[in-house]
Formats: sequence, structure tokens, C-alpha cells
Amino acid sequence: MKKGTLYCVGMGPGDPELLTFKAWHALCHCPVLALPEDQSGRQTAATILKEAAARQDGLYMDEKTMLSLTFPMTRDAAVLQKAHEDASQKAAAVLDQGLDIALITLGCPTVYASCMYIQKEIRRRGYNTVVIPGITSFSAAAARLGQSLCEKDEPLLIVPAGRDDIPDLLDVQGSKVLMKVPRHMGALKKQLQEKGLLSCASLVERCGLPGERVCTDIRDVDDTGYFSVILVRQEDDL
Amino acid sequence: MKKGTLYCVGMGPGDPELLTFKAWHALCHCPVLALPEDQSGRQTAATILKEAAARQDGLYMDEKTMLSLTFPMTRDAAVLQKAHEDASQKAAAVLDQGLDIALITLGCPTVYASCMYIQKEIRRRGYNTVVIPGITSFSAAAARLGQSLCEKDEPLLIVPAGRDDIPDLLDVQGSKVLMKVPRHMGALKKQLQEKGLLSCASLVERCGLPGERVCTDIRDVDDTGYFSVILVRQEDDL
Repeated sequence: MKKGTLYCVGMGPGDPELLTFKAWHALCHCPVLALPEDQSGRQTAATILKEAAARQDGLYMDEKTMLSLTFPMTRDAAVLQKAHEDASQKAAAVLDQGLDIALITLGCPTVYASCMYIQKEIRRRGYNTVVIPGITSFSAAAARLGQSLCEKDEPLLIVPAGRDDIPDLLDVQGSKVLMKVPRHMGALKKQLQEKGLLSCASLVERCGLPGERVCTDIRDVDDTGYFSVILVRQEDDL
Repeated sequence: MKKGTLYCVGMGPGDPELLTFKAWHALCHCPVLALPEDQSGRQTAATILKEAAARQDGLYMDEKTMLSLTFPMTRDAAVLQKAHEDASQKAAAVLDQGLDIALITLGCPTVYASCMYIQKEIRRRGYNTVVIPGITSFSAAAARLGQSLCEKDEPLLIVPAGRDDIPDLLDVQGSKVLMKVPRHMGALKKQLQEKGLLSCASLVERCGLPGERVCTDIRDVDDTGYFSVILVRQEDDL
């Protein structure tokens, strides 16, 4: 029997209008929708799915089989590896029935997304996989601010905020995007202040989602939730 | 009279299926479509537009007014400033008639896109502007390769290949995306070789367009065209 294909589908950062036609067609086509569990993006990705299905014709949720895949929020490599193997096993069992799966992911699958471990493992096992890119949170945040991420020959650096080499990374030429901001807001503001970059920094929280917040001056921001991006322009030219 | 709104619309990197619903709705809604002229992306962005209009219902090209905006390919600041002012003037004259404009852009407007100079100037003149993000070439290229741009806490650095500090930028932690590759291929291969990164580098040319080329080993690549992206994984783990 012909084996199914695994589609890793980028759902974009929140606004269901930011789904691509390609993502939409994969969602409509696949009889099985895989939703990651125990990941902060889970509810949001599922919400985007439901919102998109409510707005556009062609995606009938009650005709789909839902497959839950567990991605625990931990840095324990052994726990993660076990979870990825279990999820791959579950997906493979469905693909063996000749059924295609759409594994949904917040933002873009190629940017800090757990689905790619499954994609890699499934591909290693000899199945066909397709990755459908999505609008990233940083593109959407910059668009929301009406501001470029990078111009001319400027480099652009994407930085997870929990790293301990943030001061060095802030010294790299070009604009920066700070991701995974919560719990690090205080430290980041101090580090940006020390580099003279505080006035160049803006924050967008829950871009395109209910409760969206846009701050063009992060000196006003004390704390923030999970779906936050800080954009730091190289030059304070806005 | 109510003034029109300028929409900067990201068309994605090539595949017309990578347009978002938001981009599509803006294109359908706006009576005036602005196409940049004399920019390498011009024909490609217009091609994506035509392909999308041929595939989906709702966008009728013969009902649209086309507005040509000139973006010269030069580094001469005075020439560029004059061109941006002229283009803004032309756009403003249309907006003054109460007509909305969709200014199309290859990829995402927030990533190295000339349309943002017009957006900034039009906003400065008091008009309403909306930026609609698009799928970036690097997200699409990574998806095409079935490979993450960044995982866990890795930084990601986007680097225009013409810079003279490439060796320093290759020393920054994390994966890299090298953009604007043509004419620099020989130098880039040498620089990657010197940093021990040549075997971690892949190239995608014309991603999603006719003539697409995917090279997982850039040692085989001698030259490349304009729409090329090189992805350099921090670790050679693929």
C-alpha cells in the first residue's frame, strides 16, 4: 500500500488571514490533523486552525481525524528524544495506513519548531515529508510596526533571549530580533541600556491575536507573555 | 474626500501558493496595483501576481489600474532619495483620489525591500499604511531542504553576501543565511572553507519558481543567479 506523506504546516503567528494557500490546501487535503500537545504554541496553533476553518470554505473539522503528538517543554535531552521517537512512531502508524498527515505548527516550521524533529525522523524512516513555510513572528511584528527588519546590506540577527552571551550578540552589526522574551525582560532592558540600544527597541506581544500589544518604547514594559518579540533597530532612525 | 490606504503586500518568494489570504484579499480589494520597475524582483513579483490570479477566483487584473513606481538599482544615495520621493509623490496623487493601492513586493516587505522607503514617506505625509508580511526566501529555502533554520537556543544570522566583514560574521554563534549571493560565490566558498563550514552549506536557487535548483553540497556550485540563498547550519548534523 502507498504510504502517506507528512506535511509540516506553518500556521503563521496568529492572524488566521496569514495562512498561505499552500498551508490551507494541505489542511483541506489531509484526512489526519496532528496537533502538538503540552507545548505553549498548542492552543494558539489550534485556535488559528479553527478560526481559519470558520472563515474559509473547504476545511471541515468534523471530517478530520485528530492525532495528538506530545512535545514536552523540557531541556532534558533523553526525555525529548523519547517524546520525539514516540510521536514519530504514532505518525508512522498513520502513514502506514496510506493516510496523509498535516502536523500544524505556530509560525514557521523552520524557526524553533519541534515538528522538525519528527519530520527528520519520519524522513529517516523512509516516508515522504513536505515542509510548508509560514509567516514568522518577527516578520509579522515588523509589519505591524511598519518597520523594516533589515535594509540595504545590514545583517539581521535572531537571538533567543535566554542565552548568556546576549551582550556579545548585541555587538554584532545590524538589527536584532529578540525572541523567547518572557522571564528575561528585566535583564534584556539592562543589556540594551548598556549598549545604548534601549531607545531603538520595540515590542510586539500576541501579534495578530486577541490581546495584541504594540510598544514602540520598551522602557514602558515591565513584563510580557510568551508570544512576544522585541525588534532592535541598528540605527535609531524611526 | 477620504484618502486611500497604501498596502505593502508581501508576495512570497515565488510559488504563488505561498501568498497569504491577507495578501490575496488586499490585492482583490485595491483598485490600483503598484508594480516596482527596474528592480530585479520586478518581473518575478508580477509573475507571482499573474499566476495567483490565474489559479484563484476573485482577482481580475483587467479591472485594475496599474501604477509603475521606479526603484533604480543603485547605491547612489541622492539618486535613490529622488526616486523614492518621485514614487511617493505618484502614490500620494492616487491616494488623494480616495483610491487604495497594493504595492507588491517579492518575499516579505520587512526584509531588504525598497517598498518600505515609500511606506515610511507616505506615512510621514499623513496617509494610512498597512504592511502585509510575506514568506521570506530563507524560510522557503529551509522548508524546501526539509531543514530548520534554527533550533533550541541557537541564534540565526541573516547576512548579505557583499559585506566585507563576512569572516567575522561567520564566527558569530548559530546558523547563517547568506543572501544576495551572485558575484560573491567564489569568495563565499573560500570564506566558508576557511571556517570549516563548507560541508554545512546548502544552496537553493529560484525557490518555488521555474528553474529551481537545490544543492545540498555547494562545493558543486560554481555560479548562481539572483534568487539564491545559502543556508549554513552551525552543526553539520544533517
